[in-house]
Amino acid sequence: MKIGFIGMGHMGEDMARNLLRAGHPLTIYNRTRSKTEALRREGAAVADSPAQAAAAAEVLITMLADDDAVRDIVLSGYPGQPPAIDGLPREAIHMCTSTISVAMSRELEAAHQPRGQQYLGSPVLGRPEAAAQRQLWLIVAGPQAAVERCRPIFDALGRGFSVVAPDPWKANLVKLGVNFMLASLLESFGEAFALVEKAGVDVRQFLQVMNDGTFRSPLVENYGNKIIEKSYEPAGFSMRLGFKDIRLALQSAIEENVPMPLTGLLSDHYLNAIAHGHGDLDWSAIAEVSRQAAGLSQPLRAGG
Amino acid sequence: MKIGFIGMGHMGEDMARNLLRAGHPLTIYNRTRSKTEALRREGAAVADSPAQAAAAAEVLITMLADDDAVRDIVLSGYPGQPPAIDGLPREAIHMCTSTISVAMSRELEAAHQPRGQQYLGSPVLGRPEAAAQRQLWLIVAGPQAAVERCRPIFDALGRGFSVVAPDPWKANLVKLGVNFMLASLLESFGEAFALVEKAGVDVRQFLQVMNDGTFRSPLVENYGNKIIEKSYEPAGFSMRLGFKDIRLALQSAIEENVPMPLTGLLSDHYLNAIAHGHGDLDWSAIAEVSRQAAGLSQPLRAGG
Amino acid sequence: MKIGFIGMGHMGEDMARNLLRAGHPLTIYNRTRSKTEALRREGAAVADSPAQAAAAAEVLITMLADDDAVRDIVLSGYPGQPPAIDGLPREAIHMCTSTISVAMSRELEAAHQPRGQQYLGSPVLGRPEAAAQRQLWLIVAGPQAAVERCRPIFDALGRGFSVVAPDPWKANLVKLGVNFMLASLLESFGEAFALVEKAGVDVRQFLQVMNDGTFRSPLVENYGNKIIEKSYEPAGFSMRLGFKDIRLALQSAIEENVPMPLTGLLSDHYLNAIAHGHGDLDWSAIAEVSRQAAGLSQPLRAGG
Amino acid sequence: MKIGFIGMGHMGEDMARNLLRAGHPLTIYNRTRSKTEALRREGAAVADSPAQAAAAAEVLITMLADDDAVRDIVLSGYPGQPPAIDGLPREAIHMCTSTISVAMSRELEAAHQPRGQQYLGSPVLGRPEAAAQRQLWLIVAGPQAAVERCRPIFDALGRGFSVVAPDPWKANLVKLGVNFMLASLLESFGEAFALVEKAGVDVRQFLQVMNDGTFRSPLVENYGNKIIEKSYEPAGFSMRLGFKDIRLALQSAIEENVPMPLTGLLSDHYLNAIAHGHGDLDWSAIAEVSRQAAGLSQPLRAGG
Repeated sequence: MKIGFIGMGHMGEDMARNLLRAGHPLTIYNRTRSKTEALRREGAAVADSPAQAAAAAEVLITMLADDDAVRDIVLSGYPGQPPAIDGLPREAIHMCTSTISVAMSRELEAAHQPRGQQYLGSPVLGRPEAAAQRQLWLIVAGPQAAVERCRPIFDALGRGFSVVAPDPWKANLVKLGVNFMLASLLESFGEAFALVEKAGVDVRQFLQVMNDGTFRSPLVENYGNKIIEKSYEPAGFSMRLGFKDIRLALQSAIEENVPMPLTGLLSDHYLNAIAHGHGDLDWSAIAEVSRQAAGLSQPLRAGG
Repeated sequence: MKIGFIGMGHMGEDMARNLLRAGHPLTIYNRTRSKTEALRREGAAVADSPAQAAAAAEVLITMLADDDAVRDIVLSGYPGQPPAIDGLPREAIHMCTSTISVAMSRELEAAHQPRGQQYLGSPVLGRPEAAAQRQLWLIVAGPQAAVERCRPIFDALGRGFSVVAPDPWKANLVKLGVNFMLASLLESFGEAFALVEKAGVDVRQFLQVMNDGTFRSPLVENYGNKIIEKSYEPAGFSMRLGFKDIRLALQSAIEENVPMPLTGLLSDHYLNAIAHGHGDLDWSAIAEVSRQAAGLSQPLRAGG
Repeated sequence: MKIGFIGMGHMGEDMARNLLRAGHPLTIYNRTRSKTEALRREGAAVADSPAQAAAAAEVLITMLADDDAVRDIVLSGYPGQPPAIDGLPREAIHMCTSTISVAMSRELEAAHQPRGQQYLGSPVLGRPEAAAQRQLWLIVAGPQAAVERCRPIFDALGRGFSVVAPDPWKANLVKLGVNFMLASLLESFGEAFALVEKAGVDVRQFLQVMNDGTFRSPLVENYGNKIIEKSYEPAGFSMRLGFKDIRLALQSAIEENVPMPLTGLLSDHYLNAIAHGHGDLDWSAIAEVSRQAAGLSQPLRAGG
Repeated sequence: MKIGFIGMGHMGEDMARNLLRAGHPLTIYNRTRSKTEALRREGAAVADSPAQAAAAAEVLITMLADDDAVRDIVLSGYPGQPPAIDGLPREAIHMCTSTISVAMSRELEAAHQPRGQQYLGSPVLGRPEAAAQRQLWLIVAGPQAAVERCRPIFDALGRGFSVVAPDPWKANLVKLGVNFMLASLLESFGEAFALVEKAGVDVRQFLQVMNDGTFRSPLVENYGNKIIEKSYEPAGFSMRLGFKDIRLALQSAIEENVPMPLTGLLSDHYLNAIAHGHGDLDWSAIAEVSRQAAGLSQPLRAGG
């Protein structure tokens, strides 16, 4: 299956590599061209523009940072660099794996439709390690036929996928909801750990009791340990991106008239962290805001 | 091992039954005597007072609703009913499995010590079903020797246990921290589900994506389904008890000078539910407060 | 002084009337033309487009609902209706009295400057009654010379004004800050009144004690009474507009990395009210959200 | 009128002095006796115990820090020092001016009644300066006849008073409600000032606009200036006392099932300040918590 792939960031490069290894002919594009070098050596073709990456693709995958990047790359292009939508053939599929707003997802659907292109909302769950190890989980929404055609891609990228709806934007809403749940978990970790630590109870013991006794979740264990070890760098998913997603969730909440008090609390704590220069740490460092508020002032250290 | 057991409520009766089945001679007490009848028929002796239940015990287990009940039963007694502490032999162990405040736990330790009695903080994780199925997890804190002597009891009650510290109150603090984490999870469920539901996305799909894709936790699955099915009655653990535990967590947070903004949010939502007559529903019904705030007004139904 | 005035809503018509009464030749414009009829009879000229209203003006005043309305009227125009900026003479002054975002204010400044037009940020404090009674307070920011030239206008519109800075957008930020303070006051009223009412204390007594004993503020008295009497209709300033301003304040807070937990709380309560169909009530009705949460369920009535 | 006065703290000494100056024979008591010295020289008799201070009184006034102090002084006494209630004659009136819990107020009423003593809840509004300048406002609740008899005392202490109900505890609830409103105002100041300051707008200008344009309240002006000047020492009313009152308000809110989300926010910010060693600053320093969260880190200075 001929695949175009745009976006060689933390997640994208490893995802693209897995497609290459699965035997799919791959044309890649990244705005900063140097980041395409590794995959070029492994056999990928490198395009000169988003449109060129899309031109030969049966499926075009985009993995970009945010709404603005998606708009620039897919819809507007840069000077001398026509956008992906201008190159993508009729009947080809755009799988947009970025975490974008519901509004942006609808805008993409509306742009692809009159051109006879297919569009799938397909954000992914999992951090860079999961991308590298083919352990992502894909949230997919869009026309049934397009979903079916992309199955080999889902298999090459992750350990499973869920098809949530025929409307592509619903996959994006689900992704925002999941990230909201994770951010809430991290916040509750921060508060509980601060209490336990100040009371002189061993935080590792607390985490173990909680996970063995109730959650029994590898995610809870991993995030709990990240916080205990303060291994916030390099960020698998940064504060700044976490904040972006909470704001996107809030934006959807406002559209739907849904009060979500936790989004306000999370938003404040991200802003606090960003105001103190920690915007590039892993988003689990939100726990440090609670520690700081409690007067537990050991400075952050770069993690392993 | 000769065991006294006080408190035949939702949890206590099934815990006591498991001890009986494991072959331990058991003397039980409950203030409302009729609740001792079932176990009496299965072979337990029934005491006339807390002191009598304790009198022959190597280990006295209490499973009571809150601080006040523990103080009445263990320390003060009722008219004509001397308290457990007056009957408990020197060297015998009091295993207090109730979720009580850190202050109450310290008070118990201080009361037992001069009498040469041992005291273990040993609150349990798990709902009534888990108690019945020997699937509890025990959080244990106290002197090493007493912990060792109680191992056969831990084995008869649950699927595992954690020893967290030599200070008994630390087990209680850990329990409060875990319940805070669970209450926070339920709150975030409520907010996320309200958003997803109003946006027209299938809530079951959302839950499945979240759990398959990230948490991979049976607890998350169970609680998520409870909320989706609105099966809030009978309560495994009621709003009112959940509220009590959040207030105990807040009380510890105040003692330690730890701001915990989530406790304020949780406290408000429990009060809201209680103000509307829902204090006896399962604590997972906190999700309904978010639904109501979002204008999703289907009334609660009794669950299966 | 020849004045153009655009926007004949709740506030605008009365403000324009006061200018007319003060003897200033006035040309007015409103998108829905019928709303210009009263002032036409009182002597105002009526323009056919925003550009025409601006064409003869030494000072153009706009009083419009929000950023979008300002952008349409001033910068973009409607089909067949050129925008105000195309009509406004060089050296003329645009006094923008609407409550708009800081970003929009900067956009206006950047648009006027290359055309040699002056621009003042001049949002007003006061509700429609105050506008009618010449009791507004103007918050003014912009070049000193332009401020001086507009003094007769300030005098005709209100009881006083403050000049806050040479940068026009700073007047808008100050306005958002003041509205945030007022919304916070209304929220605290709602919570305190709910407590006092449920405890069986007379709410009027409470208000009087508070104001006589501490605030001694006519505003506190007026808003307190509005809430006690539930006189939420017609809205002097609606929930929906209050929510808009809190979101604009939050937008500025995000730009400046300032956590403002009260904005989250306010935002949730506005959304709650809007989700229940109360978006068009006066913004003081935010107090009803707290009453409802407390189980005080008397329905809202239209007020006097 | 023969008056006993117990409690020579920040407020009490100046209140007692005003009674002395108004010509009332005064017997005073303070646990730390040295604090009675100044008034002794000005003509007050000094009692050796609470009971003795009460023994000759037609009206006994207490101005003490909190529930515990009131219980010790009025109901329990200290070793060798019988409590006030044992000395107070039948028909004499106890005016309790401290800010105590509703529960404590009810306990006092229940204790005085069987002894034929009268009891007035009469907390005061105003800081130490107001006490010194006879500018307090009294919140009075209790039997009408007792209220009437105390009028000369109200006149000697303050600029006015409100009679709110026949139930003494209602005066205490009103006081807690007012302090909640003031604490909320201070919190909103902190957030708004942080925004305005980071955006580069002059905070004094902002305060002036707000007060001239909307509140028109001397209290708003005074507190605003205190925060701008960081004059947090000596505390007129400390963080720690502010926190105590918010917790008492929350306690009443829990009794009445009233969610009050602002109490959670305020509580967190007080805890944050106390955790950083600022518990003895004036309660207006809660604004510094918002400044710190926003990364505005200038250290506190002792104020004028």
